[in-house]
Amino acid sequence: MGSRSNYVDVLIIGAGPAGLTAANCFLGSRLNVRIIDKKNGIVEAGKADGLKSISLEVLDSFGIGDGIRNEAHRVEEITLWNSDPAGGLSRACIIPDRIPELGKPREVSLHQGRIEHHMIENLHKRSTIEVEWRKQPVHMDIDLDQVDNPEAYPITVSVETSEDGSDPGLLWQPMHVERDSIRRPEIVKETIHAKYVLGCDGARSWIRQRLGVSFVGDLTDSTWVPKTSFPDIRKVAVIHSSKGTVMSVPREDRLVRFYIQIDAVNPNAASGLARRDLKVEDLLDAARAIMFPYTMEAAECAWWSAYRVGQRVANEFARHGRIFLAGDSVHTHSPKAGQGMNTSIQDAYNIGWKLRACAEHQCGREILATYEDERKPVAEALINFDRDYLKHFAKQHASNHAEFLDAYLKGQRFTTGIGIRYPPSLLIAEDVDVRSLHGGLVPGLRLPDFQVVNQSDGVPIRIHQRLRADGKFRIVVFPGDVSQEHAMSRLNQFGAWLARSKLDVEVSHSEGDSEEFFIETITIHAARRADVELEDFHEALHPWSSRWGWNYWNVYADDESYHDGHGEAYQRCGLGRNHDCVVVVRPDGYISVVCGLENTGAITSFFDALQPIKSVRPRI
Amino acid sequence: MGSRSNYVDVLIIGAGPAGLTAANCFLGSRLNVRIIDKKNGIVEAGKADGLKSISLEVLDSFGIGDGIRNEAHRVEEITLWNSDPAGGLSRACIIPDRIPELGKPREVSLHQGRIEHHMIENLHKRSTIEVEWRKQPVHMDIDLDQVDNPEAYPITVSVETSEDGSDPGLLWQPMHVERDSIRRPEIVKETIHAKYVLGCDGARSWIRQRLGVSFVGDLTDSTWVPKTSFPDIRKVAVIHSSKGTVMSVPREDRLVRFYIQIDAVNPNAASGLARRDLKVEDLLDAARAIMFPYTMEAAECAWWSAYRVGQRVANEFARHGRIFLAGDSVHTHSPKAGQGMNTSIQDAYNIGWKLRACAEHQCGREILATYEDERKPVAEALINFDRDYLKHFAKQHASNHAEFLDAYLKGQRFTTGIGIRYPPSLLIAEDVDVRSLHGGLVPGLRLPDFQVVNQSDGVPIRIHQRLRADGKFRIVVFPGDVSQEHAMSRLNQFGAWLARSKLDVEVSHSEGDSEEFFIETITIHAARRADVELEDFHEALHPWSSRWGWNYWNVYADDESYHDGHGEAYQRCGLGRNHDCVVVVRPDGYISVVCGLENTGAITSFFDALQPIKSVRPRI
Repeated sequence: MGSRSNYVDVLIIGAGPAGLTAANCFLGSRLNVRIIDKKNGIVEAGKADGLKSISLEVLDSFGIGDGIRNEAHRVEEITLWNSDPAGGLSRACIIPDRIPELGKPREVSLHQGRIEHHMIENLHKRSTIEVEWRKQPVHMDIDLDQVDNPEAYPITVSVETSEDGSDPGLLWQPMHVERDSIRRPEIVKETIHAKYVLGCDGARSWIRQRLGVSFVGDLTDSTWVPKTSFPDIRKVAVIHSSKGTVMSVPREDRLVRFYIQIDAVNPNAASGLARRDLKVEDLLDAARAIMFPYTMEAAECAWWSAYRVGQRVANEFARHGRIFLAGDSVHTHSPKAGQGMNTSIQDAYNIGWKLRACAEHQCGREILATYEDERKPVAEALINFDRDYLKHFAKQHASNHAEFLDAYLKGQRFTTGIGIRYPPSLLIAEDVDVRSLHGGLVPGLRLPDFQVVNQSDGVPIRIHQRLRADGKFRIVVFPGDVSQEHAMSRLNQFGAWLARSKLDVEVSHSEGDSEEFFIETITIHAARRADVELEDFHEALHPWSSRWGWNYWNVYADDESYHDGHGEAYQRCGLGRNHDCVVVVRPDGYISVVCGLENTGAITSFFDALQPIKSVRPRI
Repeated sequence: MGSRSNYVDVLIIGAGPAGLTAANCFLGSRLNVRIIDKKNGIVEAGKADGLKSISLEVLDSFGIGDGIRNEAHRVEEITLWNSDPAGGLSRACIIPDRIPELGKPREVSLHQGRIEHHMIENLHKRSTIEVEWRKQPVHMDIDLDQVDNPEAYPITVSVETSEDGSDPGLLWQPMHVERDSIRRPEIVKETIHAKYVLGCDGARSWIRQRLGVSFVGDLTDSTWVPKTSFPDIRKVAVIHSSKGTVMSVPREDRLVRFYIQIDAVNPNAASGLARRDLKVEDLLDAARAIMFPYTMEAAECAWWSAYRVGQRVANEFARHGRIFLAGDSVHTHSPKAGQGMNTSIQDAYNIGWKLRACAEHQCGREILATYEDERKPVAEALINFDRDYLKHFAKQHASNHAEFLDAYLKGQRFTTGIGIRYPPSLLIAEDVDVRSLHGGLVPGLRLPDFQVVNQSDGVPIRIHQRLRADGKFRIVVFPGDVSQEHAMSRLNQFGAWLARSKLDVEVSHSEGDSEEFFIETITIHAARRADVELEDFHEALHPWSSRWGWNYWNVYADDESYHDGHGEAYQRCGLGRNHDCVVVVRPDGYISVVCGLENTGAITSFFDALQPIKSVRPRI
């Protein structure tokens, strides 16, 4: 560790979900990125656990989505319960936790520590970035004269060994440090000079203290193994009774997470409930009272906490285009909607690739302003949703579940990303330049996730698994049914244009490696896979490299797979199988440009406007 | 390591796929199991790579199937090529690598070292068994007076530190050993007293030497990254030309494995090709000649070898019911059919649970005789298939692909397990005592793999993922459509019988843990999931434990899932949705007994005949 450079491109402060997401955005990069955290390691506490589909897509792009799915509990159903006139409880309804247009599960639940563990292992495996535990910032300066110089390191951060105040039950410990040095570290000071600083240090963010946000609230949160006669304990259950409200969310193994609103009738009384007065038995008693006549005991309590819920968004997400804040450090809300970790991951995924592109001189620093423009409105909308949702949650005798359901379904727009559209900017074109497109492909929306089949080997893959977080833009071409001669001919004209364009796009090349190009092309055609051959496609669309030979992972068919059905990609994108279009997709999976195959000018102008400082790679 | 006991229940020799499979059969057991290997660690060599569906089911039962699927290349298509009259090559056909009745992919390919890595990590995570590298047996004695005493340790094995003769490119090294001690170990001798010894030490097995098997052959085998104009390089391709035969199998990343038959016209000349005379360039030249006019270069060669193919089966698989042989140590054949590793895994999975059951006193030692009775016929059938297949492979100008295809498809019967039926024995009942069953459920066949939906949480799961390798027998009940009152009533009568039976089956209990029972019950009903509640089922079918509460993982529906379609379990088992039956499934997933719900006597007699020495747990 002593050999780490003190001059870093990006310093990430905080190794929770946001910080680790940001660090994973630098997989395969040669930049000098460091990530520090004042904790001892991953703590075996409860905290967040709900992973929405949009977050799983991010984890897919890191190559760890399936590993997490394997460990997690998949949430399939939500059930609502009310008190009944006889003094008992009765089930009002069971709702599938499903959004048909998504075409896949919307949510899984897993202990946050395990998710962090996967992200850290991935850094070990696929980068030189290593979490430096027990380091905290104690001082920070910025040289304002240097903020516009792309080569400068204008931020100076003093970092110190933190005191060992963390939970003894660590799930993960640094591998390359002697155990003794973990337990009795010297206080070491270090000065780090950074081009960019990203604050992901949580609700009590050291970095954010200057922005001033405070908190209020009244909820308890706990995770245990229940022994109960309540029949819906392995579904998500919302139970309204005269004694309060319980929401239970099943987790991996036998665990269930409980949100318990005590004395919901009188929120003022409840908020007087200080954390130090509350015992775990109080939570259990409350759950028992609310869920009566069902029995309830706890076999094991993994974690619990009582806290005040504040719904706030920071005024600023960034300062001087050099210091950025992400996750809990800029927005706080109730945990019940299960949005905290997910929004943190999305924040960090948004800023991560932008910092990488700037530090690698692929884009001008102007793109950094889009971070706040894109994420602050999402945080605000989320807070409004949360406030609304909490209100319905607290409602006693919710005689009409329709309202609650409505609020719940509104929330799903966030969790799938379907409801998020980033505003026009340098990175998002204003218009769609294609007739005959219905829905799916719109600048500012996330590219839908769908299955396609590899032309060369017949293996089906979901597109967000293919869009690895390697900092690349993708030109995704939908050429329609290329078994029709005119469609193949239009596509190959586009390929010929690509080959002679000045873009930093991978086409056939005799030096370097695929990793070095800023843009790659992916073709998704609508012909039957068996009706065309890879060699029919212009070679710019499946580039030859002198080192590795042909690339077999750039051309896909929207066709039936042998074992996993049909992805119906064209249909999900609102595109007829005899129509065509080109979509420029950002490194974070959002759509920048949608245009016709002949409108190559739109593509050129888009990339030109990103103002790469590095001269364009000369074509060989 | 010094603290390991020298008195072990099972000593496994060899930590390849067979040995590691056997070790994983002891997950969760308190037995003292040791596994030694003379190598330094997992070697980064090529060797086996094809994992068939039946092996993936075994890995699923260890909980690591999905992790391996994520890394592997899925094989979807096979293509056959012939020389054409113009002197070139032409594609004769593309065949889906699919068996519709299997309902899932048949095959993936992945470097054997990665598969071993997953199995070793699983031992670390879920057991106290640790591979002891660099230890080889040098002497073995058996005390014949003690072989029938179940408490005795009749086998004495002297073990010594092996010389460091292995490849320096290790993929995995023991974690708890200083690096220095790996490089310059002292020679340490140790005497181990074992109840059972399992030899999984490969084709040159030290243990098997006394059985005497020899080898002959003429094939080359190599894995590299090809740069080629051949269009089907990412499919399985079989190319017959006047210059010889090539079979290529795509692997993970960019790798492809090539089997090249040099000078197929004159096998005698070819077999004169000694391994030491051959260079990797010779392989490449041969591939180029056979695949002409397509170009072929190698970007990277990961591994290669030339060897003689012997097709032999050992006379004995076991001696004195105490020493057993598995995998390459008892059968050798060509690698082309991709059967070696798979058969090794199946061998070890077959003997693994039997040794566990005997050492844990759940079964009498008589069951051990079934190992040779079950696996030797499979090895013999495999050798016959391989001989036939190799003959077709070597055929020049295979003018008629039908024969080759036929041989290939015959092979699929092994790879899926569909073609394997174990003979009647203590462990396999003679007859099926159920009318109206068509196919699927037959004693001696493997339980088909199908998806079912959890009654309590709606999560779909494939049944072989549910049948964890924990040494348990399962009573799998198919009660039909339990929304019909008479069907639920018949099922609950069966539940009542279970609750009062003397079997070591988990029903509701107030002490101990689920793990301690030898038998568990799984119910798969054919009603719509929403039409019944868990509480409608007799509690013996979803046992209450005083420690953990209700068990939510024993009752499943053969119903539509929210995101993954319908498993059609009844149909795959050849069972009408209004019919019922009970199936006793062995710990390795093979069917022991099929009987009617009212024929509980068949179940009792089956378990009685296994002669557990341990007294039956008293019912509380």
